[in-house]
Amino acid sequence: MPEPHSQRRDALREHLREREVASMLVTDLLNIRYLTGFTGSNAALLVHATDRRGAEGGTVFCTDGRYRSQAEQQVPDLEHVIDRASALTLARRVAETAEQHRRVGFESQHVTVDGCDALADAADPCELVRTPGLVEGLRLVKDESEIEALRTACAVADRALDELIEHGGLRPGRGERDVARELESRMLDHGAAAPAFDTIVATGTNSAIPHHRPDGTVLAAGDFVKMDFGALVEGYHSDMTRTVVLGRPADWQRELYELVRSAQTAGRRAVYEGADVREVDSAARDVITEAGYGERFAHGLGHGVGLQIHEAPALSQRGEGTIDAGMAVTVEPGVYLPGSGGVRIEDTLVVRSSTPELLTLTTKDLLAV
Amino acid sequence: MPEPHSQRRDALREHLREREVASMLVTDLLNIRYLTGFTGSNAALLVHATDRRGAEGGTVFCTDGRYRSQAEQQVPDLEHVIDRASALTLARRVAETAEQHRRVGFESQHVTVDGCDALADAADPCELVRTPGLVEGLRLVKDESEIEALRTACAVADRALDELIEHGGLRPGRGERDVARELESRMLDHGAAAPAFDTIVATGTNSAIPHHRPDGTVLAAGDFVKMDFGALVEGYHSDMTRTVVLGRPADWQRELYELVRSAQTAGRRAVYEGADVREVDSAARDVITEAGYGERFAHGLGHGVGLQIHEAPALSQRGEGTIDAGMAVTVEPGVYLPGSGGVRIEDTLVVRSSTPELLTLTTKDLLAV
Repeated sequence: MPEPHSQRRDALREHLREREVASMLVTDLLNIRYLTGFTGSNAALLVHATDRRGAEGGTVFCTDGRYRSQAEQQVPDLEHVIDRASALTLARRVAETAEQHRRVGFESQHVTVDGCDALADAADPCELVRTPGLVEGLRLVKDESEIEALRTACAVADRALDELIEHGGLRPGRGERDVARELESRMLDHGAAAPAFDTIVATGTNSAIPHHRPDGTVLAAGDFVKMDFGALVEGYHSDMTRTVVLGRPADWQRELYELVRSAQTAGRRAVYEGADVREVDSAARDVITEAGYGERFAHGLGHGVGLQIHEAPALSQRGEGTIDAGMAVTVEPGVYLPGSGGVRIEDTLVVRSSTPELLTLTTKDLLAV
Repeated sequence: MPEPHSQRRDALREHLREREVASMLVTDLLNIRYLTGFTGSNAALLVHATDRRGAEGGTVFCTDGRYRSQAEQQVPDLEHVIDRASALTLARRVAETAEQHRRVGFESQHVTVDGCDALADAADPCELVRTPGLVEGLRLVKDESEIEALRTACAVADRALDELIEHGGLRPGRGERDVARELESRMLDHGAAAPAFDTIVATGTNSAIPHHRPDGTVLAAGDFVKMDFGALVEGYHSDMTRTVVLGRPADWQRELYELVRSAQTAGRRAVYEGADVREVDSAARDVITEAGYGERFAHGLGHGVGLQIHEAPALSQRGEGTIDAGMAVTVEPGVYLPGSGGVRIEDTLVVRSSTPELLTLTTKDLLAV
């Protein structure tokens, strides 16, 4: 299905024309995947603002010999060049057509200082012009094919957790690492290409460590068990956290859980088209601060997800701007009490005009397993 | 054990003095891990060529609040600064001591064009000077603690393959993806932090694809099964390929296998201190070329391994220079016959003065499983 990729390249061309850049050399592999569908580990893409030959006659894709047949399959609609030095090859190519393409944009947020020198030499007599973040800007708002991939990735994670609990995977005496491996294994069983990131399983006092790495610590009756995990499907990442209690929750656990749950609900309700990212963060943060735990929530409320597990926008006090319909974001407040335990509840959502679309559907009731 | 890290920083200081650079800002996370032992996802390190306060009084390590306790544990011997903007914070820090440190080296092979601007602003009035590859240069020759990690990583992979075969994991009707998952799972069982890279399992005609991604293809009697995999242990990567036959090998399979095996033996024998990387490649390649299959061996003979799965030196006709004792390299010739099948045999070795030390110990006899 090359259509969405072709539409995305057209959207990029508009930005190039606005910036009076004749063409752009895209070298970041995720951005290339977004613009072409190619999933290999070496590629470059040259996109012209306008094409003499109409349609996409001048757009050129370059990869190396390992990916010849893969490129034919994944990128059937563009001209291909096969060369190991993909970016340099396309920089030389644009230099050959310098008359038309004097100013060549490049991804200055990805290209290294040394790499830029090599590109500039290869592109001579063209002038390299910084065009940072153009493709990332397009990637902010997801199209339906992307949202469908995110939906599937979230469903895979939901199902893995459901089965883990169903099959007694959370039980006293079991190690955190084993639980993490079972979650990951079940996600692979249901079609994940890989976990979306290193799965967090944190039991007991470890749950008070926001990004604990699962180790040999064994689950014990009465523990909070915090699980933060996701699935990678067609390049898109899901992200979900649930915190359960092993056995009967103590009063302090119920209270802490309900506090975080209220904050998470408030955060989700603040997610709508046009909302300021700081206000979304505040909506959840204020609930926690008013309860006296503001200092125990020491991270942002959420982040964008897509081809990267962490991408723009940042829903935090450090963030800027508003959110648009079609963005995919997490909402994940947490309160961490060192020495006791912590709770985080996280969903992946799609911003809509009013109520966001919830992609992670596992219950947020406090589960006693 | 901070000692090796401190020694490595001393070695870096010598290079800084040679280049008349007063200090260096290290921002690549693998290089920081190499120089400090820190394994987190955000850090920067400032190393001075000479220290007024003696020893390492002026060396500063920066990470963010998530890693405060981890940094205290992993980097007990350096001064810490806690700030999210780690590189910029240390650039500002060096600017404050500008009198002493006018020229500040940075990793121009890693820092992006946009990132360099921000660093230069923060370091003003100091001058940023390109010092690419200094730490990577140190990383080429492994010390005993690194070789021990590689040895363990290779042993984990050996054991996983041994058990896979022992327990009947290679059998007709099983899918490639399942075999790959079992190999990975067994490596985790034996202490790998993760697979060293995406495991390749390629059966039948898929074995003729050098970097086939395992899919639903089922193993069938008479197939070549090519497995390329490795374990990650303490940050170090092992890399091994074995090709077996499911059932009784046909004559053409035996012949192809013995050809690649002879080439691999020749390649290993050419690995010794002072050997030219192209000659090592040629030693194996000539065997294959003389047999008439030169064009069917379309990749380099091997590469360095360490904190990265692919690092210098490249053992190939594109490579340059000689190899030194203590380098860890792979030797992995392959011959791929499209539509029929392919064989690759790969070991990880440590270069020694004469015979290299073999780290991957699985037999290279043709296994009929």
